[in-house]
Amino acid sequence: MPAPEIGPKDVLVRVRAASVCGTDLHIYRWDRWSAHRIHPPLIFGHEFCGIVEKVGAEVSTVREGDFVSAEMHLSCGRCFQCRTGQSHICQNVRIIGIDADGCFAEFVKIPESNIWKIDPAIPVDYAAVLDPLGNAVHTVLAGEVAGLSLAITGCGPIGLFAIAVARACGAFPIFASEPHPYRLKLAEKMGASVAIDPSKTDAVAAVLNETRGVGADVVLEMSGNPQAVRQAFQMLRRGGRISLLGIPSKPLELDLAGDVIFKGASVQGINGRRVFETWYKMQALLKSGALDLSPLITGNASKVLLYPNGKPE
Amino acid sequence: MPAPEIGPKDVLVRVRAASVCGTDLHIYRWDRWSAHRIHPPLIFGHEFCGIVEKVGAEVSTVREGDFVSAEMHLSCGRCFQCRTGQSHICQNVRIIGIDADGCFAEFVKIPESNIWKIDPAIPVDYAAVLDPLGNAVHTVLAGEVAGLSLAITGCGPIGLFAIAVARACGAFPIFASEPHPYRLKLAEKMGASVAIDPSKTDAVAAVLNETRGVGADVVLEMSGNPQAVRQAFQMLRRGGRISLLGIPSKPLELDLAGDVIFKGASVQGINGRRVFETWYKMQALLKSGALDLSPLITGNASKVLLYPNGKPE
Amino acid sequence: MPAPEIGPKDVLVRVRAASVCGTDLHIYRWDRWSAHRIHPPLIFGHEFCGIVEKVGAEVSTVREGDFVSAEMHLSCGRCFQCRTGQSHICQNVRIIGIDADGCFAEFVKIPESNIWKIDPAIPVDYAAVLDPLGNAVHTVLAGEVAGLSLAITGCGPIGLFAIAVARACGAFPIFASEPHPYRLKLAEKMGASVAIDPSKTDAVAAVLNETRGVGADVVLEMSGNPQAVRQAFQMLRRGGRISLLGIPSKPLELDLAGDVIFKGASVQGINGRRVFETWYKMQALLKSGALDLSPLITGNASKVLLYPNGKPE
Amino acid sequence: MPAPEIGPKDVLVRVRAASVCGTDLHIYRWDRWSAHRIHPPLIFGHEFCGIVEKVGAEVSTVREGDFVSAEMHLSCGRCFQCRTGQSHICQNVRIIGIDADGCFAEFVKIPESNIWKIDPAIPVDYAAVLDPLGNAVHTVLAGEVAGLSLAITGCGPIGLFAIAVARACGAFPIFASEPHPYRLKLAEKMGASVAIDPSKTDAVAAVLNETRGVGADVVLEMSGNPQAVRQAFQMLRRGGRISLLGIPSKPLELDLAGDVIFKGASVQGINGRRVFETWYKMQALLKSGALDLSPLITGNASKVLLYPNGKPE
Repeated sequence: MPAPEIGPKDVLVRVRAASVCGTDLHIYRWDRWSAHRIHPPLIFGHEFCGIVEKVGAEVSTVREGDFVSAEMHLSCGRCFQCRTGQSHICQNVRIIGIDADGCFAEFVKIPESNIWKIDPAIPVDYAAVLDPLGNAVHTVLAGEVAGLSLAITGCGPIGLFAIAVARACGAFPIFASEPHPYRLKLAEKMGASVAIDPSKTDAVAAVLNETRGVGADVVLEMSGNPQAVRQAFQMLRRGGRISLLGIPSKPLELDLAGDVIFKGASVQGINGRRVFETWYKMQALLKSGALDLSPLITGNASKVLLYPNGKPE
Repeated sequence: MPAPEIGPKDVLVRVRAASVCGTDLHIYRWDRWSAHRIHPPLIFGHEFCGIVEKVGAEVSTVREGDFVSAEMHLSCGRCFQCRTGQSHICQNVRIIGIDADGCFAEFVKIPESNIWKIDPAIPVDYAAVLDPLGNAVHTVLAGEVAGLSLAITGCGPIGLFAIAVARACGAFPIFASEPHPYRLKLAEKMGASVAIDPSKTDAVAAVLNETRGVGADVVLEMSGNPQAVRQAFQMLRRGGRISLLGIPSKPLELDLAGDVIFKGASVQGINGRRVFETWYKMQALLKSGALDLSPLITGNASKVLLYPNGKPE
Repeated sequence: MPAPEIGPKDVLVRVRAASVCGTDLHIYRWDRWSAHRIHPPLIFGHEFCGIVEKVGAEVSTVREGDFVSAEMHLSCGRCFQCRTGQSHICQNVRIIGIDADGCFAEFVKIPESNIWKIDPAIPVDYAAVLDPLGNAVHTVLAGEVAGLSLAITGCGPIGLFAIAVARACGAFPIFASEPHPYRLKLAEKMGASVAIDPSKTDAVAAVLNETRGVGADVVLEMSGNPQAVRQAFQMLRRGGRISLLGIPSKPLELDLAGDVIFKGASVQGINGRRVFETWYKMQALLKSGALDLSPLITGNASKVLLYPNGKPE
Repeated sequence: MPAPEIGPKDVLVRVRAASVCGTDLHIYRWDRWSAHRIHPPLIFGHEFCGIVEKVGAEVSTVREGDFVSAEMHLSCGRCFQCRTGQSHICQNVRIIGIDADGCFAEFVKIPESNIWKIDPAIPVDYAAVLDPLGNAVHTVLAGEVAGLSLAITGCGPIGLFAIAVARACGAFPIFASEPHPYRLKLAEKMGASVAIDPSKTDAVAAVLNETRGVGADVVLEMSGNPQAVRQAFQMLRRGGRISLLGIPSKPLELDLAGDVIFKGASVQGINGRRVFETWYKMQALLKSGALDLSPLITGNASKVLLYPNGKPE
């Protein structure tokens, strides 16, 4: 694709590395959601890092040559949420790579205010996954975790990131529930204290057993699977916090009385990343060295794809 | 019934006034829940005020003649929740009037540590309903309300109390949704800004219309009715807080993706009263004069019932 | 003065009413602070309301004829605080009326993003004081107040506003400490439960007496006077919250051990208004009718000043 | 000393290891504070672990042979703070080892409700210092730390513990300011990112330099030294949190305007440990293995003292 034209407040970035989100798989398979939301032709892709190629005339905080990523949710700046520090849940959000051309190309155009300058100490492999890592950081740090027990249901990439983040932030023990053996193995490598295969073991009973019947202080639901969601609620202790990031594909049945109300539970919906609180925290965690993501960087297919001319690191 | 024997740490209270909880109606009708939970013979009733008749040998903070009510949830003092300031969600809670003899009698026995001394400025009619009023105070004040829009679904006694509490604490506007005309009328008298009959009007649309499409900052679900619960979630704004007190009788279907996750909503289960934070706040609100409960004290049937020998105020 | 030129993102407002801040008195007296900070010629004044006269070419959310006020703190949009939802404490803040031409003129120029559209239900007298009222709302609502005892030291205009706001938000009792008899009288009219003249009464003892020796749950320091500041800390209960808005003119001696550390106190510095959380809450409180500011609107000198041609309401 | 008599709700503990608090040094030196507060004869000492020797007749949660420590602050259970989940700042607190016989003896008597059962996985050396480690955990976790920069002024034992706790909970970078070279070396071993000798370097400038002029997100004041306290406030960023644990020996001068109010800072006094939230979190952190305290266990003098008959581990 040709490099996009940029306006006076835009930044043109030459993509160095990108990663594939579950959302991109939906688009690739052209499912119902994609057919409804995506208006081709579109360059998709919204997780990346790169080098600034050019900046618009009014851009003052970013320079040619900067190593950057970006918050790809474009908030409107005018709605109630945007005017009260909650732009991550903007009423009129548009997403680069879904509603506008994204990063699966040599160049991508980003408004200056969405650019995140990456500390050069952070390797390119990590810099390409700040978007989903940010989902994990947002979810884990949506409440206290230090010195608390924490359970994660669903160990896709974001669930696995969340294990590492929770570990780096003092959660213990960390329970990971995931039926896929390869992912469950990765969960252990990322720092899970107890890895549970819910297709073989009663995941709720496992968490209760390990917590003297109390349940987990914090539960992070990362699967969207109806049964896992229900188990997530059941393994939560009275007065605990459950944060929901996984997206169920349709409404599901919940025992609000037993699992939320009598328990005095706190339930949080998590969307995107806090702009830019989450980014600042993520960067500090990465720089601290406490966050080992290497078990998750399992292959180099994307490098092959993105560097056809042969210059990955 | 004869006055109960008291132990060294107990207080014997002569009941002055009591009120009838929805739970008492379940017992009266002897439904499935009652048949399972209640072990007769039992004196039921758990909302009351009275005068201390006698105190046990080791009681030091309560005296004969004190005007009192009580927190009727007996916490164990030993579980994780009790040891961390969350005794209102004790794992081993027992309730006076359900698991032990209650207040529908001339005398009731209460452990000293559960006694709440009532400021004499508070009238007997109000003092008899501190338990459900406390549920309302706990629910309303489980987050910010001052200067925020607030919707209540379900205007039984606790929902009606919550309107008055929310009004006294600066919420505005206050939406009340309730299909029963008599209760909806009371909702307006208690201070609702907009009274909605959801059997005639689209309650969600009504709240959205009045908030320029944003939704209510805070929603309090007080009905337990499945449809009202779903509407409660739908009328909440992105990033808002919904507190659930009404008890659905069975699991219900929820659109977690649309109503919680993408919205970045906070959902709270509310159980009982914070011991004794809720009581202190309730007392201050009552003493301030800002809390007018008079529309709710609609009759004196309970007085007739409780004082067969003719000595109400 | 001639009407200022506006840029494409600016709004030109015809001033309807303005009010005089303590800061303006400093400038009028040309004290050390003013001589250092203010670079004449300057139109000062930063509390006002008015009608939009004209908007720049790129303005989309404000229209000619709108009734508006404005957040007069211009944040840079680029610093850490601005990028994390804390623009009220921007590192590079500039203030209209101090660092740029203000509202003591027929017209004032405001960037679109700082405009606050006022609900037409709010009278002009109130609309002219949203800036200092916003300071009060920010201070009162910087923590819980409903059902809590609250003490205010210093009853200048913002302290008096704070009494009304605290009252409207369920604080009780409200203690007001102020040596000036006229202001102390106003404090009572605004809703103070106990008015204390600290030049005649021991203010700390008075608060302790009325709270059974516990101290006030919340203290708002609104004077900046060193002795009042120390009393404010001393009248706070263990575990209470003290919010500081009054500006001491120089460093002062504090007993951190006794008044903060052993007490487990929370101390907050309050600066400006949360943009725009405070504005939304303030508007809701004003519309609710619970906030009676009329005792404070004591004269019409400002109207005379602002409408030399004779057209006040 | 002979073993103390225990009552029906008491636990008699055979001391295995104890540690010496700064408070004990005050008593040893018999300074003004000690002469006023301590009423000899008294067994002092309040940091220890041991094995339960005997339990009173009404004790149900502790058994002979249990490995235990204890919260040595005895709260009254009747004051406002005790009744609202804040017993760590009880108005009538008494401390074992200061107001009653302590643990520098073969046996110590503890009320059942103050006993903390130690997980057998925790080594005796660590179990003897849970009291001061708890101070550190309470201070670090009195707000967010994960992904935030954090500065500690004063690296005595609690300051050093705090470095390890902050590191285990995701703070980065961690600045430690301490003039004593031996302690500053320990600070690095405990995990400080930047060790500052404030007698040689401008500590405030050092923190500002390393944070691009922003200041530290969180500051923990652990020295009580007036100059360090002032520096602690100055190195805090706008909107940051400073928690004060070090006890200044007398009132000191603070620039509230510049260092608290304009900054919009949050200041917290920290006293003791949250009972038992802090203990639960501390135990989880110790069990997780993320908390390496070994650099701090520098000698075995205490073992010699405590095991005259020769049976340390």
